[in-house]
Amino acid sequence: MTDLHFRRAVAADLPAIISMLADDPIGQGRETAGDTTDAAYAAAFSAIDADPNQLLAVAEDGAHVIGTLQLSFIPGLSRKGAWRGQIEAVRVVRDRRSEGLGRRMIEWAIAECRSRNCALVQLTTDKARPNAHRFYDQLGFVASHVGYKLHL
Amino acid sequence: MTDLHFRRAVAADLPAIISMLADDPIGQGRETAGDTTDAAYAAAFSAIDADPNQLLAVAEDGAHVIGTLQLSFIPGLSRKGAWRGQIEAVRVVRDRRSEGLGRRMIEWAIAECRSRNCALVQLTTDKARPNAHRFYDQLGFVASHVGYKLHL
Repeated sequence: MTDLHFRRAVAADLPAIISMLADDPIGQGRETAGDTTDAAYAAAFSAIDADPNQLLAVAEDGAHVIGTLQLSFIPGLSRKGAWRGQIEAVRVVRDRRSEGLGRRMIEWAIAECRSRNCALVQLTTDKARPNAHRFYDQLGFVASHVGYKLHL
Repeated sequence: MTDLHFRRAVAADLPAIISMLADDPIGQGRETAGDTTDAAYAAAFSAIDADPNQLLAVAEDGAHVIGTLQLSFIPGLSRKGAWRGQIEAVRVVRDRRSEGLGRRMIEWAIAECRSRNCALVQLTTDKARPNAHRFYDQLGFVASHVGYKLHL
């Protein structure tokens, strides 16, 4: 049975989260799994944790961290001053994929966005993730936009 | 001649900004131009202004506001703890379009992202804006992602 619950990540979750970010076909080239002493990750965690409009979350099954995602709550003038909830860095640990946990994580994230009065939830996924596209389509998201990135 | 400069928006800029958001084929259906007393816009402005990771900017030519955009600086663990700069709500006033002002605004925004140590600049544009796609392609952005939206 799955005893899934969600909570704000704490610093002690960093190794598990970084592992999940790295254990991914696209992420593995840009993360350093296991290098949990990396000052850059610790600084990033502090910045996220200090910002009331950021929510780095973990999903736990019992005492095991099995997933992570980050929510950013973004105020804006567009759409009559609507807040947006933005989802980034969604991962499920490798040995728990294809069990529907991702769906439950996104449903939880959407509920968090509702509770913060967001009018819109948005995210982008790499064009090289066709499975992710089907997943978000099924959850009711509309692929209405093109996502542009510029590396500095 | 153009005497273009950029600055953080102040509350007195709200009518001009809302007008620009509304004067757009996609935006006009969801904004209320001229209704500058709308408490929702004022509340949104306060939320943006109070958040050190949000920068609502205006471009001025002399004393005239001729453009606007919003920058969000987003901390994250991905990419070894990289900050992202996100650009939203880019508009140039109707009678000053096609003069290259949009390009100068985005170049300014990219420089702001660099000054905040962002590793990445990101944005999404509606698939129904083909001119915007050419514009961002020319500025070096890569259309690597699909942008999903879910209205709540």
